[in-house]
Amino acid sequence: MALVFEHETKGQRVLFGSGRAAEHLGAEIARLGSRTPLVIASARHQKLIADAGLAEALRYGQIVEHVPIEVADDARCVAMSSGADLVIALGGGSATGLAKAVALTSGLPIVAVPTTFAGSEATDMWGLTEHGRKRTGIDSRVLPTTVIYDATLLAALPVGLAAASGLNAVAHCVDSMWGPRADPINAALAMEGLRALRSGLPGVVSGESEATELALYGCYLAAVAFASAGSGLHHKICHVLGGAFGLPHAATHAVVLPHVLAFNAPNARAAVERIATALGDVDASDGLDRLRTSLRAPGALREVGFQDDDVPAAAMLILAEVPPANPRPVDGAALTKLLHAAWSGSDPRLTWTERTA
Amino acid sequence: MALVFEHETKGQRVLFGSGRAAEHLGAEIARLGSRTPLVIASARHQKLIADAGLAEALRYGQIVEHVPIEVADDARCVAMSSGADLVIALGGGSATGLAKAVALTSGLPIVAVPTTFAGSEATDMWGLTEHGRKRTGIDSRVLPTTVIYDATLLAALPVGLAAASGLNAVAHCVDSMWGPRADPINAALAMEGLRALRSGLPGVVSGESEATELALYGCYLAAVAFASAGSGLHHKICHVLGGAFGLPHAATHAVVLPHVLAFNAPNARAAVERIATALGDVDASDGLDRLRTSLRAPGALREVGFQDDDVPAAAMLILAEVPPANPRPVDGAALTKLLHAAWSGSDPRLTWTERTA
Repeated sequence: MALVFEHETKGQRVLFGSGRAAEHLGAEIARLGSRTPLVIASARHQKLIADAGLAEALRYGQIVEHVPIEVADDARCVAMSSGADLVIALGGGSATGLAKAVALTSGLPIVAVPTTFAGSEATDMWGLTEHGRKRTGIDSRVLPTTVIYDATLLAALPVGLAAASGLNAVAHCVDSMWGPRADPINAALAMEGLRALRSGLPGVVSGESEATELALYGCYLAAVAFASAGSGLHHKICHVLGGAFGLPHAATHAVVLPHVLAFNAPNARAAVERIATALGDVDASDGLDRLRTSLRAPGALREVGFQDDDVPAAAMLILAEVPPANPRPVDGAALTKLLHAAWSGSDPRLTWTERTA
Repeated sequence: MALVFEHETKGQRVLFGSGRAAEHLGAEIARLGSRTPLVIASARHQKLIADAGLAEALRYGQIVEHVPIEVADDARCVAMSSGADLVIALGGGSATGLAKAVALTSGLPIVAVPTTFAGSEATDMWGLTEHGRKRTGIDSRVLPTTVIYDATLLAALPVGLAAASGLNAVAHCVDSMWGPRADPINAALAMEGLRALRSGLPGVVSGESEATELALYGCYLAAVAFASAGSGLHHKICHVLGGAFGLPHAATHAVVLPHVLAFNAPNARAAVERIATALGDVDASDGLDRLRTSLRAPGALREVGFQDDDVPAAAMLILAEVPPANPRPVDGAALTKLLHAAWSGSDPRLTWTERTA
């Protein structure tokens, strides 16, 4: 098969080391020659801010989920009026998201110090919520210049949240294999990420620090691969379920992923073989099931608020968003069957066995 | 083991497609908004230049190996006086090298269209020869903005040269595993590159076009990984043998690599296991031997002009350049033994069997 692709590698610096966030942050501010950084962080990161020599720095602490436009505009105003020359995002996806909103209009560089497995710090994707609707976009200005990873910052993350957002990262890797811009390079990064997540995530739940490092490393590559390959079928489904039916983000990903994997598997043999290998199993679905079990992931959409009655409407909405390049053709009947299986929590390996044209 | 590293991903766009170079080049010139590109290419690329709509473009055709400073200055002068807004390098490592020399002082962006397996197009390393001495350096300005790969452009490459420069790419992958800035990310890229090279290179020698695509893809990742990880023991040895003893570049790499692999193997078990897997063998040295045999690589330094008498002097010179982080401690006696084995062409698997402290 001829090798044809277009791949854009995005430049970014990553500093990785447990217990080194303050030291790395101080060094990075010096390297970038920043004199008036704006620190976006909630109050609970006070100690890290002080350790990095930022106790006197300008601070913005109003962090709200999904980046409401009012908050974004306020933070932009603070950045401009204070003459900030750098934005430091210290926290989860919401802190990073707010920093991106500032960078989007100001062009200021970002240094991100993530405290969750969100992965937003490794992408050039931004999101803003206005009148209850989330607009998203892609812009090179919002890709953080530097990411500083420190596994000790994730110690406070509740186990359930860690497992769910870890499985979200697993979904980034799996869905990258058939995303609209999937290519050999982002596939290789996705599979390296998946190997690290499979090895690390079970230990995160039991609080092992080296496992957290490995999972964090895997999350980073998962996000890099996903930003490069784009949203595949799995992410389109979860986007509709979250946006139109209000289902919780991470739990929805955790439930839906095995169903998409089993659905696409017969038509994506090479990809699924690589997924299986990365999961350390001979069968990809078995490997994913084992990982989900070890993380005590939810097993059915009905456990997280989805109604059986909503299946037909959800199927219609998803159908309009199916990526044309999905390895297995998707129609309304297939989506209905998939959503019903995900709602009931039935074994996806038994739902999809035959190969379709 | 704690995960500590610093990784700098360099931004670059890659367009990959056989027979598409002219189309991709035209599109890229338009995307970059270039009006007065300077084309650095020898006369044999006339057809591609015309096909890309560049028949009337400014041309620089004096391509000399190792980029003599006089040629670089002349090309810089042409670029400046003509108001060039882009440099297009069309050819092997020497054409890319000259474009880098222009970019180094002018800051002009480069679009590279490689016609060999050199790999220079994927790195931010430059070299200039002055008074018979080659100076090298690293500068982000010389990293091409875009690389356009088209396997059909390599059809004219002599088989012997293709095999030798392919093995040079294999050396990039292997040596990346213990380079001074080796990290999990460049290791993953190196191993993906090695897999592609192992699958592609034997078919390049027999003229299969899809094998050439795969090898070209592998060469790209090999160069990306190598630029990121830095020169390991193997490249330091080859650098001395080439610089001080005038040995031919590619052939020297082909002979020396198995000796460095066998030497480091006992102290780098995890890396060597990954190399073996990427080479499709249970043993890394056996896998490399099989690949070298299929490419009819030279087996001894004495076949390429090295003298047994030069071993002690070479060992002394190399010792001063050994990377401190090499997995196995290196002393003069070890280098003498390694060089003598490489000179005679003895089996490296029999030279190094024991593990040292």
